[in-house]
Amino acid sequence: MHRQDRKEGSIVDALDLDTPALYVDLDVLERNIARMQEQCRAWGVALRPHVKTHKIPEIAKLQLEAGAIGITVAKLGEAEVLPGDDVLVAYPLLKPKLPRLRALAKKRRVKVAVDSVDVARDVHGKGIETLVEIDVGVGRTGAQSPEQAVEIAQACSDFQGIFYWPSWLDEAGFRAACVKIDAVLDALSASGFEARIVSGGSTPGAAKTPLIPRTTEIRPGTYVFYDASSLAAQVCVEADCALRVLTTVVSTAVPGQCVIDAGSKTFSSDQTVGAGTFGHFIGRAWTMRKLNEEHGYVEIPGPAHVGEKVWVVPSHCCATVNLHDEIWYGRRGRVEGSWKVAARGKVR
Amino acid sequence: MHRQDRKEGSIVDALDLDTPALYVDLDVLERNIARMQEQCRAWGVALRPHVKTHKIPEIAKLQLEAGAIGITVAKLGEAEVLPGDDVLVAYPLLKPKLPRLRALAKKRRVKVAVDSVDVARDVHGKGIETLVEIDVGVGRTGAQSPEQAVEIAQACSDFQGIFYWPSWLDEAGFRAACVKIDAVLDALSASGFEARIVSGGSTPGAAKTPLIPRTTEIRPGTYVFYDASSLAAQVCVEADCALRVLTTVVSTAVPGQCVIDAGSKTFSSDQTVGAGTFGHFIGRAWTMRKLNEEHGYVEIPGPAHVGEKVWVVPSHCCATVNLHDEIWYGRRGRVEGSWKVAARGKVR
Repeated sequence: MHRQDRKEGSIVDALDLDTPALYVDLDVLERNIARMQEQCRAWGVALRPHVKTHKIPEIAKLQLEAGAIGITVAKLGEAEVLPGDDVLVAYPLLKPKLPRLRALAKKRRVKVAVDSVDVARDVHGKGIETLVEIDVGVGRTGAQSPEQAVEIAQACSDFQGIFYWPSWLDEAGFRAACVKIDAVLDALSASGFEARIVSGGSTPGAAKTPLIPRTTEIRPGTYVFYDASSLAAQVCVEADCALRVLTTVVSTAVPGQCVIDAGSKTFSSDQTVGAGTFGHFIGRAWTMRKLNEEHGYVEIPGPAHVGEKVWVVPSHCCATVNLHDEIWYGRRGRVEGSWKVAARGKVR
Repeated sequence: MHRQDRKEGSIVDALDLDTPALYVDLDVLERNIARMQEQCRAWGVALRPHVKTHKIPEIAKLQLEAGAIGITVAKLGEAEVLPGDDVLVAYPLLKPKLPRLRALAKKRRVKVAVDSVDVARDVHGKGIETLVEIDVGVGRTGAQSPEQAVEIAQACSDFQGIFYWPSWLDEAGFRAACVKIDAVLDALSASGFEARIVSGGSTPGAAKTPLIPRTTEIRPGTYVFYDASSLAAQVCVEADCALRVLTTVVSTAVPGQCVIDAGSKTFSSDQTVGAGTFGHFIGRAWTMRKLNEEHGYVEIPGPAHVGEKVWVVPSHCCATVNLHDEIWYGRRGRVEGSWKVAARGKVR
């Protein structure tokens, strides 16, 4: 299963890894996967994880083995290298991508979310099903009204249901979203369209799934690793953060500050949602105030030492993983091997 | 020289590229390289470009052929795959990296910037020279006083000069930096250290190089491509922007907005410095207000059409390039081939 298992004589203590290095704790990863699966069962929805978070075939396999009904991707390039017999492309796919979509549909069951009549009309082919995307208040993509949703459904060659993205909506936002979803489902039903699938999503909104009771499946991604943004939003606790970045203090020249050897090319420039900082330090009351490409500017209340190794939970795990070709994994601080981030950079 | 030259029957019009796609205009690239080289000659300084911007061996070769005295890198992993007989590692290199630094020094002339006595003491070996980094007001790394600079120089085994990073300092900042540099050079001289090299840097500060007259070389990176941040700062004009991202409008569902198929996994999350937006559209009065991983939220004053292709100059070219395995290049909108971004992801 693993690309590279540990060989005799190689590094076994994660703290000995050359830095910066991404490390996944397998105990935590497996627990996160099992828990979300259990919760989905309790909520009465299926789990179709968004694999853009990790882009690693071995992790997708763990999710599928735990009971996920398939995978969600944003781009075809991700689906082409990640496993799962049932693939939802959660993205408006235009004509030039259709040959690849049809090739995918020859081997796997394929669904595409569409939000316009034109795209709905274009996306057809053997084994290609469509979900109509509904904007539930985020303002990114999706039909704006029940009437629009019906029009798009009428243009679909194989309508299967609807799709919504709750992003970081709060409880009031979820309740408003539910009203919209119900109105859309009623309008569709009145026009003869029965939505077999009502696909919701996102890790921060997962626990609010019961607030939209007609949801049949959700598409969280981040929950495999969680991150500093999940932590700041109290979606998880520190012990749930499976992905950590090992870094080294490289400069303490400026008083009250140290600089670590990881910047936006290691973490991404994404801020910790709501906090405005750039990650969470394990076991230290340090604050990452700013990033350059290869430097993290850390505000420190006490001393720091050049050469000191520190663990950081990144602000946004999906963006961090996508910067790296490989990720180490192991248990209890030991390194057991590394995974290739197979779908890294697959933006097409 | 090029990894993949265009084959008969392949795409020739850049607008036919599958999106999102990075494209470099060679005419503009070559002009940018030639111009910066000329300007450095006029300012009486050598040019040692920071190759973290492009991470592409073929572009480094063009810079060296145009007269660059060597290359600047942040990480050893970059130096290991990019050409240049004279390599400055503009980064505090700690002990665990020394074996790789020494291996590099066997084949190429190597300099390292150091900002602490400990690191200066550790970084020694045949062919390894050191520059003492001075903080000229940016507050990232570097000695804080002339006294500290002298202490660090005393710990160097092969002191060659000093190093400063002006980042985005304005003219007043440069004048203050000059006072600091002069004080450091005088203190070093009084202690018997003659700085043969005074290494400055950065594209936004390049034109202010004469304000620090004892500078002997500069290390700009961005100038090969420029970007929307350079444009907003009036460091260049639109025609100088050699790197552009071809994107497609994928949704117009939300009124007053369109969504393009490129988000932070294509551009990075870096904002356009000073503007707070996320890139510059060519030929359209559109504003990129927000990015998700694969979606760009664009404010549009008039209509946009699903399927419409649009060119975007990214906010920060260095961060954008580092997300991609390959970049297309050509002239006058034609595609001539692609380069592998050989040092992509080399954060160690």
